[in-house]
Amino acid sequence: MQRALSVSRTTDNRLTFPDWYQAIVREADMAEVSPTRGAMIIKPWGYGVWERIQQTLDRRIKETGHDNCYFPLFIPLSFFAKEAEHVEGFAKEMAVVTHHRLKMVDGKLGPDPEARLEEPLIVRPTSETIIGDAFSRWIKSHRDLPVLINQWANVVRWEMRTRLFLRTSEFLWQEGHTAHATADEGREETLKMLEVYREFSETVLAMPVVAGEKPENERFPGADKTYSIEAMMQDGKALQAGTSHDLGTHFAKAQNIRFQNDAGELVYCHTTSWGVSTRLIGGVIMTHGDDDGLRLPPAIAPRQIVIVPMLRGKPEDEAVLAFGAGLIKALNPLVALGEPVRALLDTKDQKSSEKRWNWVRRGAPLIVELGPRDVAAGMVSFMRRDDLRDGEKVRSQALSQEDFLAAVPGLLAEIQQNLFNEAKQRLDANIRRDITSLDELNAYFGAAAENDEDTLAFKGWVRVAWSRPTGAELEAVEQTLKARKLTIRNAPMDQPTRFGTCIFTGRPGVEEVLIGRSY
Amino acid sequence: MQRALSVSRTTDNRLTFPDWYQAIVREADMAEVSPTRGAMIIKPWGYGVWERIQQTLDRRIKETGHDNCYFPLFIPLSFFAKEAEHVEGFAKEMAVVTHHRLKMVDGKLGPDPEARLEEPLIVRPTSETIIGDAFSRWIKSHRDLPVLINQWANVVRWEMRTRLFLRTSEFLWQEGHTAHATADEGREETLKMLEVYREFSETVLAMPVVAGEKPENERFPGADKTYSIEAMMQDGKALQAGTSHDLGTHFAKAQNIRFQNDAGELVYCHTTSWGVSTRLIGGVIMTHGDDDGLRLPPAIAPRQIVIVPMLRGKPEDEAVLAFGAGLIKALNPLVALGEPVRALLDTKDQKSSEKRWNWVRRGAPLIVELGPRDVAAGMVSFMRRDDLRDGEKVRSQALSQEDFLAAVPGLLAEIQQNLFNEAKQRLDANIRRDITSLDELNAYFGAAAENDEDTLAFKGWVRVAWSRPTGAELEAVEQTLKARKLTIRNAPMDQPTRFGTCIFTGRPGVEEVLIGRSY
Repeated sequence: MQRALSVSRTTDNRLTFPDWYQAIVREADMAEVSPTRGAMIIKPWGYGVWERIQQTLDRRIKETGHDNCYFPLFIPLSFFAKEAEHVEGFAKEMAVVTHHRLKMVDGKLGPDPEARLEEPLIVRPTSETIIGDAFSRWIKSHRDLPVLINQWANVVRWEMRTRLFLRTSEFLWQEGHTAHATADEGREETLKMLEVYREFSETVLAMPVVAGEKPENERFPGADKTYSIEAMMQDGKALQAGTSHDLGTHFAKAQNIRFQNDAGELVYCHTTSWGVSTRLIGGVIMTHGDDDGLRLPPAIAPRQIVIVPMLRGKPEDEAVLAFGAGLIKALNPLVALGEPVRALLDTKDQKSSEKRWNWVRRGAPLIVELGPRDVAAGMVSFMRRDDLRDGEKVRSQALSQEDFLAAVPGLLAEIQQNLFNEAKQRLDANIRRDITSLDELNAYFGAAAENDEDTLAFKGWVRVAWSRPTGAELEAVEQTLKARKLTIRNAPMDQPTRFGTCIFTGRPGVEEVLIGRSY
Repeated sequence: MQRALSVSRTTDNRLTFPDWYQAIVREADMAEVSPTRGAMIIKPWGYGVWERIQQTLDRRIKETGHDNCYFPLFIPLSFFAKEAEHVEGFAKEMAVVTHHRLKMVDGKLGPDPEARLEEPLIVRPTSETIIGDAFSRWIKSHRDLPVLINQWANVVRWEMRTRLFLRTSEFLWQEGHTAHATADEGREETLKMLEVYREFSETVLAMPVVAGEKPENERFPGADKTYSIEAMMQDGKALQAGTSHDLGTHFAKAQNIRFQNDAGELVYCHTTSWGVSTRLIGGVIMTHGDDDGLRLPPAIAPRQIVIVPMLRGKPEDEAVLAFGAGLIKALNPLVALGEPVRALLDTKDQKSSEKRWNWVRRGAPLIVELGPRDVAAGMVSFMRRDDLRDGEKVRSQALSQEDFLAAVPGLLAEIQQNLFNEAKQRLDANIRRDITSLDELNAYFGAAAENDEDTLAFKGWVRVAWSRPTGAELEAVEQTLKARKLTIRNAPMDQPTRFGTCIFTGRPGVEEVLIGRSY
């Protein structure tokens, strides 16, 4: 039988993976490219997922003591000039506002030459500089510390090659920014938020991740340490799903964020920043999608249960709609995964088979098809999106209305867990730990990046020991890996006590790192 | 006794009103000016109010069938060129992005001349054009209608003279955009959302408003009809707190938004748009503030009950903190105004009297002061922010813990209602209906706008009959009013059946309008 999605993702033909991804984004009604180059239109179903991410993560951010606030979209150019002096590797791909008015000149609309800004404004690529400036005014004494804030905002980083959700010039995110009295407190905060991201990703997105520290060459410019959570997509590539930065005193020094300590001395604060973005939605798609479309974990599904009434323009329709409305009324007060159940009766003017397949493609966790016979028998027939098929055949279950209502909270929790388990199994099964030399690494990943078959074949990650080289030696490692389109993802938090030999330098290893291809 | 706020708002010296407003914004920790000209930093307490506004209004927007989505921040210049052709009065004060990269040139950071955009991008001042473009692609048949969407976003409209929350170059808002098959449906939607705004403003913000239709000269450019809700501030001025536009087929024609009707013909859609912004927070301040600072309606207070423990660095402190923590635990499961109670134990390292006055200034509805004697007696002493003083003396009440917990939901509901009643009484008492000529109008509002005493004296509004002139005659009315810094706010929805003579034209009136000074 035909799958619901127009493009199939089969493991023997990895070339279709990007097409399959795009097909889900499109056919699950998540987002579309916009007439503004590099930006996306997030459609209601996709934005609904983002709202669920916001609500569930925001709760965690507040529970760990952070307050939300809002800083300006535009940042004066001079702020970046200051940063450019202090921070090496500072990225310059930013949108620059130079005028504040349009004018018709010779019948053509354009920037008004008389409305040129004295100082150009930068559309925020991230807000460290402008928030740091506020910190320098807000913080005077140790009693003002810690400052723990977060903002949900749009940011812009110019991108040449974009892919919806994964890499767009404008994206939505949250950025946490904190200031502390001591290095220990800054480190503790950085790791605390890394753990919030890990737990959130695994519990809410059902997306297993490896939390760890980025190597020196992958740090956020200006950070003492950068940590990430890395998720494995179904093509074996890594997706950096969230980062947490221990900024030490670098930004505090650049921006004069100081406080008077107990001894009455003015000393620099230790700051941190951490963020996740709409990129997570791309991660959810590439973690849980299948050849029928998206499968959404119930915790982030805008609608967890969708009832499709089978209407035929006959008198029985009324009873079907009434039964469906009654079911919604009975579902609404139920609680699943700690929150009220979100159910919908889809009364759109559309063929019911089309509707059913739309909800399959969108990944609603439970899809109920309600016909006159079900209503007469008081039965509810439903499909589980996480377990849609028996071979090629669609699997449907039927329960009495009463039994269905009693089963719903358990079913949703089970679907959430199933999706996590499936992805967790894939992650664990695809991290090779038996590679002990560069030759073996090359043999596994393929010698040349130019070879598409090599690059696109499913590989997963390898976990190897290294001696944590720095400087030119690290540069050489980076180049070696780059030639195979590989990067070091992170050094996982759980490290052994003894290490093998470094596959790059031949010296004794001091750490294990994950290597893989990535988004 | 000294009032808590540094600037007093007394009715005999209206000149202090703007200073009083700024003092609240600053001393209630709501927002501050930013280093980015014209933009503001919304601080945690102010942003908390915005989050409450978002949550409560978003629920209403969804309950009326709208879905949220997200459109790009940048809009191609060509979209505005199209609009400029179709729409008269199109505003041109917009931020223009012309470059996508920075570069160090001669040691100075600036826009990279090689990264000039072929087509400038506009930072959205509102999203009609880019959303209309999407509608033109999404809508094909009558089955696709209505399209009912909303977005929460930041927008930028260049402003020369800014005031925090009331007029800033960047602000936060929601903008609803809908498309319908018929003119009737478009009108119905426009009025439905006007009513949502009215009910929201009165129920949640405790801010009474007059809903009505804007005169022709105050319409949104391109709208068939513009409706507004107008609130009266404590200086008598009107604040336009929300607008709803029936756009007819103007935007559909400019953007080719068409559908195939039942007869198989391609016809234009009827569209609407409607929005409220962070300006509402300015309205809340100017409606409910007093000389002790802000008073927040419990429905939007980020914390409804704040417990200030009176700590003295003595062994009793522990019992006080334990009692306070127990109180929070008992408050958390309570429900007031349909939602879980939001309570805070303020354990910040600060003198308790300072803390108390900070919470008075911020407008927390109930402030509990907890000392060792209260704890020993199992009593809770609290202040109601809506009824803070008995003459100059601060009024405090004491209840047993049990009685306090039982009283909290009722107290919060009562405070919400009290704040509304107070403002409603002021609104009703300050709309004059006895003015029947231009001379009387002039006599009431003062002859010359240059005279600050006249302009700043508390006046309220007048409600007069007019003949709804158009064209040059309307222009003359506008100028007459403008000379006195007056505008027609709206024609209230509740109109009588018979009208007096038009005070402008001397012809029979056909409508009553509200006239006043405004923000």
